[in-house]
Amino acid sequence: MSIEQLRVEIDQLDENLVALLARRAQLTAQIGAHKRNQGLPLYAPDREASLLAARRQQARAAGVDPQLLEDVLRRIIRGAYSTQETGFPATGNTQRRIVIVGGGGAMGSLLKSFFERSGYPVRVMEKADWPDAQQHLAGAGLVLISVPIEDTCTVIAALPELPPDCVLADLTSIKRAPVEAMLRRHPGPVVGLHPMFGPDLRSLVKQVVVVCHGRDQDHYQWLLEQLSLWGVTLHEEPADRHDQAMQVIQAMRHFTTMVYGAFLHRQNADLPHLLQLSSPIYRLELAMVGRLFAQSPDLYGDIMLQAEKLPQLILAYRECLDELLAIIQAGQRDSLIVHFAEIQDYFGDLAPNFLRESSELLRKADDGRNPLELRQDMDSPR
Amino acid sequence: MSIEQLRVEIDQLDENLVALLARRAQLTAQIGAHKRNQGLPLYAPDREASLLAARRQQARAAGVDPQLLEDVLRRIIRGAYSTQETGFPATGNTQRRIVIVGGGGAMGSLLKSFFERSGYPVRVMEKADWPDAQQHLAGAGLVLISVPIEDTCTVIAALPELPPDCVLADLTSIKRAPVEAMLRRHPGPVVGLHPMFGPDLRSLVKQVVVVCHGRDQDHYQWLLEQLSLWGVTLHEEPADRHDQAMQVIQAMRHFTTMVYGAFLHRQNADLPHLLQLSSPIYRLELAMVGRLFAQSPDLYGDIMLQAEKLPQLILAYRECLDELLAIIQAGQRDSLIVHFAEIQDYFGDLAPNFLRESSELLRKADDGRNPLELRQDMDSPR
Repeated sequence: MSIEQLRVEIDQLDENLVALLARRAQLTAQIGAHKRNQGLPLYAPDREASLLAARRQQARAAGVDPQLLEDVLRRIIRGAYSTQETGFPATGNTQRRIVIVGGGGAMGSLLKSFFERSGYPVRVMEKADWPDAQQHLAGAGLVLISVPIEDTCTVIAALPELPPDCVLADLTSIKRAPVEAMLRRHPGPVVGLHPMFGPDLRSLVKQVVVVCHGRDQDHYQWLLEQLSLWGVTLHEEPADRHDQAMQVIQAMRHFTTMVYGAFLHRQNADLPHLLQLSSPIYRLELAMVGRLFAQSPDLYGDIMLQAEKLPQLILAYRECLDELLAIIQAGQRDSLIVHFAEIQDYFGDLAPNFLRESSELLRKADDGRNPLELRQDMDSPR
Repeated sequence: MSIEQLRVEIDQLDENLVALLARRAQLTAQIGAHKRNQGLPLYAPDREASLLAARRQQARAAGVDPQLLEDVLRRIIRGAYSTQETGFPATGNTQRRIVIVGGGGAMGSLLKSFFERSGYPVRVMEKADWPDAQQHLAGAGLVLISVPIEDTCTVIAALPELPPDCVLADLTSIKRAPVEAMLRRHPGPVVGLHPMFGPDLRSLVKQVVVVCHGRDQDHYQWLLEQLSLWGVTLHEEPADRHDQAMQVIQAMRHFTTMVYGAFLHRQNADLPHLLQLSSPIYRLELAMVGRLFAQSPDLYGDIMLQAEKLPQLILAYRECLDELLAIIQAGQRDSLIVHFAEIQDYFGDLAPNFLRESSELLRKADDGRNPLELRQDMDSPR
């Protein structure tokens, strides 16, 4: 067969693939409807694992790279999760109202849509509604605080009295202060939640939510079960320990990223030119810096300003910087390598795991890559 | 149909998918053989673009998410490129020998396999072969230097006389010094190359190589065409301008990454715990730090030590750090937000593009995510 004939046959196969995906989506939508009606979790990890194992084995037998098959199936499965639009299963009492304070924001809106798709009546309370707060909150079964970090504790303190068995919860990325404020304000059930994901998702399957217990877990257990039904993995953590870790995970990373952005700006670095010369890994590094600046200065500013230990952490970071700078200024190759080896030792097995994980991700980034885009980047107005 | 019956039908569809992929791989292997015999480029961007456009349109008509179809097809296409193992097309003279000095290293080995699969005779020259260098290099058509940065110029200077029309080229990640050293050593054709990818690839399709012209381009044009046949995109750049950019792209990023690793070590941060509390984006941030320490201290140490302006750049970075630290210590929210906005302005349209690009990548990272792995990370020995 000529190249042209081979391509015609490939096109026919790919057309079959489209038909296969269309049929598969119909079947998964029907499964979604069953899950809703029977109150079953959206995410079935055992089914997913056994499906993948069976197909990998079959792929091997057919001479197909099992990793290729797994990657393709996982992508299809993601699509299935985010289009099971037929409504979601519910646990708990779907008669009592859920009030999302600040529900007009991105994260509040996301959770509103999930609660609604599970059949809960949801009301959003924004600033303009405060004069009627009592009326909004009357008879609520859950009050969820989803306001900027800076305002969280003030908003909690300003709440009117809630029904005694109403659950009070928040979604802030720091946990000690909001949980304490909620415990002070409300004598009933209290729980702090920190969703480990951004608001741009269409499915919560495989996402993590940190749970900081407050009071009367029996009364908010239904809320945790509801999150699990949506596919969320819960991770319990004391509020203090959570906040300590977040200062390193979030605040310090945002800070050093912002410093790098300031540095590039100060150098007046020609970003489109840097992109042209960037391999996928450096392109991703640059993207990880640049993405910060597409986001809310208020949110990220507050994450940094609310991290009590941040100045202390920055000083420790700067000490490390000064030490390595001195070594580089002196051209002490041996000393640089000793330092490198010490950190290598500290990362241990995680380092090669991280390398494997990020390299696989970069290969996926390459899939969608079109070198012509480099030129587009270059021409894009600054 | 019950959930069980629906799952049986899904399994049948997925079995058909495996068979489809197996058949498709046979067809693309035949296309690969045609390309080899006819000396056609492995990467056919127009064909790829028209194939994707046609299937996207068909997907839309069938009610399938076109992005899902495109992601799946791109992953399949990547698989096809990396398994077209039937040999590669060649341009240029496949009679004259290619000598890769340092060809036992990772990048040298990669290029050796590509040249060999295109039918060129390749000889690797390592340290032990230097006494017989003259013999190794006699009659060579291309001598490719692929040794550690630190050694590049010394190795070039130590080369015996090459055939007058032999092409001398290098693969170092800095370009001015090696190109100058090659021009001094060899009066014939000289070209500096910097592959913008790591050695862990099975296909060069869509990868970028920077070309710094030296002398007598007519005589090494075949080498550039050979890279193009393998699917490489060439990017021409003056050596000085390349090196300036690389100090920011590579040396500074490695430095700040190493500082972050040193900082985590100094804090004795509990990495498995941090991972448990990390959303996909923070997990990736941590992976980007950790991956450095799975790599060669010598290579990364030398990239930093060979970057002449690095100490100067670090001092500029530290100034930015000190300014932002002072703002955070003083709790100056407004000032922090003004700085943020300035950098936002500098990044311009690139910031939202980076956000979109990295978010899409994180969704792909999620595909393969199994929250149970979090527990494995936690239990892994440090």
